Amino acid sequence: MSEFDLIATYFNWDGSFEEHPNKSNIIKGVGDDAAVLALAANQQLVTSIDTLVAGVHFPLSTSAYDIGYKALAVNLSDLAAMGSKPEWFTLALTLPKVDHEWLGEFSRGLKALAIKANIALVGGDTTSGLLAISIQVMGSVESGKALYRSGAKQGDKIYVTGTLGDGAAGLASIQNKLSLSKDHADYCQQRLNRPTPRNKESTLISSFASACIDVSDGFLQDLSHILKQSSKSISISDLGAKVDLDNLPLSKALQSIDLEQALSFAVNGGDDYELIFTIPENLEAEFLNAIKESHFQFSCIGSITNTKGIFDLNNNALTTTGYNHFHE
Amino acid sequence: MSEFDLIATYFNWDGSFEEHPNKSNIIKGVGDDAAVLALAANQQLVTSIDTLVAGVHFPLSTSAYDIGYKALAVNLSDLAAMGSKPEWFTLALTLPKVDHEWLGEFSRGLKALAIKANIALVGGDTTSGLLAISIQVMGSVESGKALYRSGAKQGDKIYVTGTLGDGAAGLASIQNKLSLSKDHADYCQQRLNRPTPRNKESTLISSFASACIDVSDGFLQDLSHILKQSSKSISISDLGAKVDLDNLPLSKALQSIDLEQALSFAVNGGDDYELIFTIPENLEAEFLNAIKESHFQFSCIGSITNTKGIFDLNNNALTTTGYNHFHE
Repeated sequence: MSEFDLIATYFNWDGSFEEHPNKSNIIKGVGDDAAVLALAANQQLVTSIDTLVAGVHFPLSTSAYDIGYKALAVNLSDLAAMGSKPEWFTLALTLPKVDHEWLGEFSRGLKALAIKANIALVGGDTTSGLLAISIQVMGSVESGKALYRSGAKQGDKIYVTGTLGDGAAGLASIQNKLSLSKDHADYCQQRLNRPTPRNKESTLISSFASACIDVSDGFLQDLSHILKQSSKSISISDLGAKVDLDNLPLSKALQSIDLEQALSFAVNGGDDYELIFTIPENLEAEFLNAIKESHFQFSCIGSITNTKGIFDLNNNALTTTGYNHFHE
Repeated sequence: MSEFDLIATYFNWDGSFEEHPNKSNIIKGVGDDAAVLALAANQQLVTSIDTLVAGVHFPLSTSAYDIGYKALAVNLSDLAAMGSKPEWFTLALTLPKVDHEWLGEFSRGLKALAIKANIALVGGDTTSGLLAISIQVMGSVESGKALYRSGAKQGDKIYVTGTLGDGAAGLASIQNKLSLSKDHADYCQQRLNRPTPRNKESTLISSFASACIDVSDGFLQDLSHILKQSSKSISISDLGAKVDLDNLPLSKALQSIDLEQALSFAVNGGDDYELIFTIPENLEAEFLNAIKESHFQFSCIGSITNTKGIFDLNNNALTTTGYNHFHE
């Protein structure tokens, strides 16, 4: 099978299913030298690229379906962190060999999430080599309305979506470093392999939040990005955060283990793809009112301070040792 | 060095040099969860992704500078093939280890071409693994004016930019499969390692061309894409091409070797990144007038026919055996 057939078979979804997303703003999709796309007037383009490498970003045992799902999910999460709406994505796939069963499952996982998130595949490239997946997502946002890591101010409340630490606990259970009941292990591994990008939550919070980031490297590390970039942008003394550890949202699976270990997963574990965002005090009542009727989980877990560092309510410094690909 | 420092040191070019391209339409560049970009009114977005894998897309001996240069060049070439103007790109870099000398040279090669082509780096991702580079380019085109592979009609003249076959000859000389004088070998290897994307030529031809593609897999294979997609789009019997082999543009280096071998490089060699485009007969005079004062090389090498296949002037079929990453 040639490279062209491979793309046509597995990744040229145009017309292959009725729910193909976003058809109207795709002028030209897969199959030419490049895709041609139309952005609505008064919209800006939001774009990000993330690569997943086998054995680094997912265990080698991960199913092809989950790899396809996750590769898109982590990128959708970046769009959510910017308050932008998913529109299109491209895929660069590096494969050791053409394995039709693997490709079919990979494509199925990718497509399942693409339909759910209403994002369309508009281009791709396949090359031979060790398994790696690069996805570039493109989203739209009303001009001037993107959410940044900068923008948080002293007194802002810190919120997170969903629950924290499940991805890390899932990885630990796969690696036999954590003992969980079968149900809890399944749940955490599912959260690791098929994380839920918070695009719908993002739509709700984007009118209120002063800063936003997604949790890919770990809660503390990603919160520290908000603090650092928000400090820079207001050029005053460094901002910090006070975190109420009792309020950190933990799943039933994490509630079933030793609390200290659960908190360690929650604050330092990567791969959660929840959003951390800040809400100015004067908008909090309006925000709480806006989310009241949603079924989404939002937890207020602290506030922004003017003291550098991240501390718990007892003034113990919380250390940021999130996952780092080149950490020695 | 952490992943964040690595990006900041080598790939956060904002403000690091005065000629940073396109500043005005970058709302947010490197350093957040995603970039935010503004497309001018009445413009469409053109986007493509290409991955280069060490040992597959370039010899393992290729310098870091050339790898950086080429990774961007092949992507810029896709924008040229669409008649679109380079705007922004993202970079996903997979590295076996953090080698500062390598990264410095890679960044220098990438930046050299980025400045020349006036395209800005707006995001990236670094991961550990075998060396691979994915670049996604984004360009702008006036709404409705993109060039496609489809659109060629019977009677259209076939043109190419520059010269053909130099990249393949360069590779053959590196692999000691072709003997060239030192000057000619240097020239062909330079063409292989630092191909010239034809973005400026693309601007000139875009008002006249009926179809366009860049030569990445080989002249015959890429021309056959134009024929196939143009046939589909007009839903009549298959289109073909008549090619005047005497008119195929050959560099001095290729003129110095056996003609048959030179033609073989020119028609089947990949990695040229020249443009193949078709000009309707009734626009040819105007096109020739428009390019008269340019210093670019354009060669008319044949015409579109209504007989399936690609033939020389003696009606010998020319076989398409371009490079295929999964060819067995």
